[in-house]
Amino acid sequence: MSQMDYTKAKDWIIREKEFHAKFLGKCEAIMCLGNGYMGMRSSTEEKYTAEKRDLLIAGTFNKFDENEVTELPNGADVAAMDIMIDGEEFSLNSGTVKSYERELNIKTGELCRKVLWVSPKGAEVEFQFKRFISMKQLHVIGQKVVIKPIGSDIFVKILTGINGRMTNNGSQHFSEGDKRLYDKTYMQYTQTTSQSNITFVFTSGVKLMDEREGEAGFHSRIIMERRTIETEFQGTVKKGEALVIEKLTDVRTTRDRENEGKPLKEICEESLLSAKELYKAGYESLVRESAKAWEEKVWNKVPVKIDSEDELDQLAIRFAQYHLYVMTPAHDNRMNIGAKGLSGEGYKGHTFWDTDIFALPYFTFTDPDIAKKLVEYRYLSLPGAHEKAKENGFLGAQFPWESAWLDDGEVTPVWGAADIFTGLPTKIWSGFIEQHITSDVVYGIWQYYMVTGDEEFMERCGYEVIMDTAKFWITRLEPGDDGQYHINDVVGPDEYKERVNDNAFTNYMAHWNVEKAVEYHNELKKNKPALFERLNEKLELDQIYPLWMERKDAIYLPKPREEDHLIAQDAEYLSLKQVDLTKYKNQKQVGSMFLDYNLEQVNKIQVSKQADIMILFLLMEDLFSLEVKQANWDYYEPRTLHDSSLSLSTHCILANDMGQEEMAYELFQRARAIDMGENMKSSDEGIHAASLAGIWQSSVFGFGGVRMLNGTLRINPALPKKWSKLEFILNWQGQRLRICVTKGSFSIVNETGTKVISFEHGTKIYQLDKKIEIIFE
Amino acid sequence: MSQMDYTKAKDWIIREKEFHAKFLGKCEAIMCLGNGYMGMRSSTEEKYTAEKRDLLIAGTFNKFDENEVTELPNGADVAAMDIMIDGEEFSLNSGTVKSYERELNIKTGELCRKVLWVSPKGAEVEFQFKRFISMKQLHVIGQKVVIKPIGSDIFVKILTGINGRMTNNGSQHFSEGDKRLYDKTYMQYTQTTSQSNITFVFTSGVKLMDEREGEAGFHSRIIMERRTIETEFQGTVKKGEALVIEKLTDVRTTRDRENEGKPLKEICEESLLSAKELYKAGYESLVRESAKAWEEKVWNKVPVKIDSEDELDQLAIRFAQYHLYVMTPAHDNRMNIGAKGLSGEGYKGHTFWDTDIFALPYFTFTDPDIAKKLVEYRYLSLPGAHEKAKENGFLGAQFPWESAWLDDGEVTPVWGAADIFTGLPTKIWSGFIEQHITSDVVYGIWQYYMVTGDEEFMERCGYEVIMDTAKFWITRLEPGDDGQYHINDVVGPDEYKERVNDNAFTNYMAHWNVEKAVEYHNELKKNKPALFERLNEKLELDQIYPLWMERKDAIYLPKPREEDHLIAQDAEYLSLKQVDLTKYKNQKQVGSMFLDYNLEQVNKIQVSKQADIMILFLLMEDLFSLEVKQANWDYYEPRTLHDSSLSLSTHCILANDMGQEEMAYELFQRARAIDMGENMKSSDEGIHAASLAGIWQSSVFGFGGVRMLNGTLRINPALPKKWSKLEFILNWQGQRLRICVTKGSFSIVNETGTKVISFEHGTKIYQLDKKIEIIFE
Repeated sequence: MSQMDYTKAKDWIIREKEFHAKFLGKCEAIMCLGNGYMGMRSSTEEKYTAEKRDLLIAGTFNKFDENEVTELPNGADVAAMDIMIDGEEFSLNSGTVKSYERELNIKTGELCRKVLWVSPKGAEVEFQFKRFISMKQLHVIGQKVVIKPIGSDIFVKILTGINGRMTNNGSQHFSEGDKRLYDKTYMQYTQTTSQSNITFVFTSGVKLMDEREGEAGFHSRIIMERRTIETEFQGTVKKGEALVIEKLTDVRTTRDRENEGKPLKEICEESLLSAKELYKAGYESLVRESAKAWEEKVWNKVPVKIDSEDELDQLAIRFAQYHLYVMTPAHDNRMNIGAKGLSGEGYKGHTFWDTDIFALPYFTFTDPDIAKKLVEYRYLSLPGAHEKAKENGFLGAQFPWESAWLDDGEVTPVWGAADIFTGLPTKIWSGFIEQHITSDVVYGIWQYYMVTGDEEFMERCGYEVIMDTAKFWITRLEPGDDGQYHINDVVGPDEYKERVNDNAFTNYMAHWNVEKAVEYHNELKKNKPALFERLNEKLELDQIYPLWMERKDAIYLPKPREEDHLIAQDAEYLSLKQVDLTKYKNQKQVGSMFLDYNLEQVNKIQVSKQADIMILFLLMEDLFSLEVKQANWDYYEPRTLHDSSLSLSTHCILANDMGQEEMAYELFQRARAIDMGENMKSSDEGIHAASLAGIWQSSVFGFGGVRMLNGTLRINPALPKKWSKLEFILNWQGQRLRICVTKGSFSIVNETGTKVISFEHGTKIYQLDKKIEIIFE
Repeated sequence: MSQMDYTKAKDWIIREKEFHAKFLGKCEAIMCLGNGYMGMRSSTEEKYTAEKRDLLIAGTFNKFDENEVTELPNGADVAAMDIMIDGEEFSLNSGTVKSYERELNIKTGELCRKVLWVSPKGAEVEFQFKRFISMKQLHVIGQKVVIKPIGSDIFVKILTGINGRMTNNGSQHFSEGDKRLYDKTYMQYTQTTSQSNITFVFTSGVKLMDEREGEAGFHSRIIMERRTIETEFQGTVKKGEALVIEKLTDVRTTRDRENEGKPLKEICEESLLSAKELYKAGYESLVRESAKAWEEKVWNKVPVKIDSEDELDQLAIRFAQYHLYVMTPAHDNRMNIGAKGLSGEGYKGHTFWDTDIFALPYFTFTDPDIAKKLVEYRYLSLPGAHEKAKENGFLGAQFPWESAWLDDGEVTPVWGAADIFTGLPTKIWSGFIEQHITSDVVYGIWQYYMVTGDEEFMERCGYEVIMDTAKFWITRLEPGDDGQYHINDVVGPDEYKERVNDNAFTNYMAHWNVEKAVEYHNELKKNKPALFERLNEKLELDQIYPLWMERKDAIYLPKPREEDHLIAQDAEYLSLKQVDLTKYKNQKQVGSMFLDYNLEQVNKIQVSKQADIMILFLLMEDLFSLEVKQANWDYYEPRTLHDSSLSLSTHCILANDMGQEEMAYELFQRARAIDMGENMKSSDEGIHAASLAGIWQSSVFGFGGVRMLNGTLRINPALPKKWSKLEFILNWQGQRLRICVTKGSFSIVNETGTKVISFEHGTKIYQLDKKIEIIFE
């Protein structure tokens, strides 16, 4: 596994055993630190040309100019430290690296790098770099560096501070604000986004000590330049002794809920006060309290245990969970999860269906308080959805394909990579016509409701979204010559088929969305008349209801063909040209087909980027027979390149459903490799949020066989050969269930025990009071 | 001389003999390429963390936001090339550098770097990198790279294109425009400044050949990302053969005069057409035509020859001339010279008195067509000067301390570096109260007039500026209790004395400015009544004239004290505290005093940054006796830290005037070292424009003894010991004079010979028809 090393999987360690300056992106992203409030790529203290430093704070979107779309701006960098040893720059590209390792401990959230380095002039020095972002205190970044000369005394010079020169690939989102030094120790820097007018406040205190926490006796001087405030320290470290540097930073913004309406001066004072307290507390005590928070909030709350012959399986699911908490702004329902989390600038921090269909279910089934924030975000972003529907000439709410701040509406960029033939940028159609997002949002909300039973949310938000979106769909439909309603000119989940008619997934989901609206409409009218009246007034339900009833059953839903059970992914797919895809199925890097074809050509070939019919099978499981599923799998999978990281987990779960255990496990392993694998360029733009959630889904929905089917919990586990045990937590209707699956049996314990839970296994319904053990083989 | 090597001075070669990644800035700046239209720092093809890439195009000022001042934006980079040899990145920080040299040939303007490099894996490769910016075609950047494997075949991958991610220390001035690939060869990129709305168009064609200019047979592919368009080439180069890469780029902007009002599409087409022609012509033919233009426009036109025991003296003056032509926008009178030329972001491309008092005289005395553009710029920027005067409650024209685009007015930033005690940024007073700039501009114009006799310019522009500025000065004066008029609360040339009263230089120059206005007022009224009437109407001279007459002789002009001949630099200076300055006089880096004192404290000490009384002696030479000069020199020089690069040349000339030949030559050498010297950090922000011009002034005004005194040419040469000959060109009243000074004699030849020239030598006046030879020892 080349540079990456997972031999310490048992110790929860993601390890890099060698350093290569050209592959910085991988560990910057997969070792990213964060707490949902902010995420920081794990760029090294010293600088390299290929580095991509990023500090992203959830929800702080800014639009650089009219030609660009809004994105999470790259905040000032505090992580960098220029270190000079006897006048020579510390860099792993020079001198000799005698030993190297970098470890992310996903249990504690601490990053640690150890280097034994000999400078070009021959000074041998041991370095230790530690870093964390606090899970306990959302605003805190901690760093510690220990420098130990081995052979001789060394003269050390360190330059570190706050650097506001960072950009998003050249786009500068900030105006420079104030720079201040307080008490000759605390550097403060403010920067304000150019369009959204959000001010970031950074306060860093740097402490230099000897090994015994005594004064290091270094000379320091402050340097302010354009967009930077830095302190330079210099002094001698004696052979055998050590220099210990602690840098503790407080970061906060005017977007923080608690800062709404607060004068900036006050926020700056609070930040300074916090920095002073951090300085007093010290690195070790702060990292301990953060690790404790990780334990309480994550590992004790949502333990997932896998006994596998391959220890990476256990590590992979914890890795996935780690990143889910790093990326998810659990503290604020005005924010959501970005497709690359907070680990890179890819997809600009925007929220896609990746949340509703991939990440949300994790929280819905395990940590519903967080799930609630995510569905509330969708409710709060209705204004943008109204605007989008209106712009397109429809009623109701059409959710944006890419979503950012609540009222931003559609934020998908319009132009993408170069066309290999014309040399022109390619148009991105998703923002215009990838419309299934609207029913995906509704599906996520409905699933949340079914799993949690959160009636309060539904009354305040959920029902409204379901009906508002059904208004959109019903006006979106196009009457055909066949007397049915069609949805033409869309992009389905498979983005290698643009501008298609009657995409099966889109049509089925739209139909389901309207069905749900009608169902709740009738139920509320009958059982909750006051709520119904409020919604009726707001949404004019009396006017739209007849249209729902008139059209919904006339929505064209492509049925399995009699001769071969195939469902047409869209109106054209099955009649498109077929080409030999072997080369691309065996690709090492996704998207290899575009080296030979442009998108226009790919559109006309029977080839899919990702699950399309398959994701329909997963979400609408009970609509299709196993026979139909199998036939379509056999047809579509060989035509699917899995070029989207969303593809593998869906296929893994379905393979399980069809009893193809070996295939399922192979797909699980491939999904696991998307970020953790050997490909050192895989994660340059950031980790794959949906894919990581997919690892949990593959385990719990796939091998654990857990599903919510029309409000019923179903558990049909089937462990892969290599696994002897899978234990996980489910949160169902407010009850914490602990499920332990072994080969041929499983137990389920209701740890809350305040409600009897019914669930389905095989063809039977069980009533769970405290504990049930089921043997199925 | 550490990294720099001047052993090939005779061949006009500035040479770097060793590479150190931490000292990139020096050669980026001193080896900067350009043609007055644009300047490009000589950053290497491969990237390093400490690099500062800059492509600056004269006059394209943009203001990033309200908190920043307008500056020359850092345009897209075309120079970078990522080169991979057998999968390893070419970088001088890795592998083994078996030989290295980089040479700027200032005669041809071509930069050449040769490296023999062994990759970490052991591939031995010879690299040659050549580059120029055409002196013939203003829009052309040429690059050539030759890659020769020595030991074995190599697989080469090259990524190069146009990179619009560049910023000015984090400030992004451009919106991304269109990216296009034409004919699978020509990459085109446009970018538009955010506030001034100037579009830059780049078109690059890249040609890969074998040694015999045959097809290299490399595979290429286009990559467009955010703000970048690049082509990746890959293929094998056989041992003993060579890969030759030529990249020829056309750069133009909507600010170019010829593009005014032209649709962008047309400009893009013209750029593409040009790129195609460049591609056809090829690197070698283009660099030849550029070298020829250097010869014609510079070296044959303004030859300066120094026969010195130290060959660096000759090289230094050519180096100065080289940079004067690289930095000066001779093509467009709407632009002027920046304090760092076009070689770096320091001082933001702004024009200071450095032009009028330091650089302009070079052109005035040697290349008056260019000088005319520079003085026209001042005339054209009168609107900003009016605005500034008005804002401050004065009449007439008050020139901005820092000047950018014509109507920008004052563009001096308000905040500077950190105060070492308070941690707060220090206020920069220059923009508010460094008022002598206004009379410096007038002095430059008057000198231009006296030397060239350009009556056309004076009638169109010059007289107006002189009178308009005199309006400012006369209303600026403050009546004192002593019945005299004072100029209080200013910064004089010595910026270590802020907010002083009656700065001698300021007062004398203001008085002179008004005197000149009165003189020309009377002359025009009498001899050119039509012109006078036009000016009278425009400037309301009839109203201001009585004020001039009433106040001008009451302007307080500090006289030499009887007891010691000292002139007080300002009202307070001579009574300020005196401290031991030895430490700072012996400093290796300028500004060392600020490690111990803040500016407020420095203000209260008898210490000067630069010439103040001395520059007054230089400009107003005949007002003061040699005795007075000597006394003041003896007093002030020991108190002057020469922390401004403007200081040394002035002192050098004065030392000469006072017959202190040894001191003069020492100062000349120190001035020479400002950019060319051992200090590898000296020029990071860019070369020192005024100091470079000062090298010419030191030679011609200093050792050559040339001066314009009230319209008379005076020549009193005195060569330093080491010099046996100094030969230079002067342009006087439209006549090209060749002056050749040797020890004890000089000859002067009128090469134009259409006018008899009178000049002064010693106490005599000579009339020059064709040639005069004078022996003075």
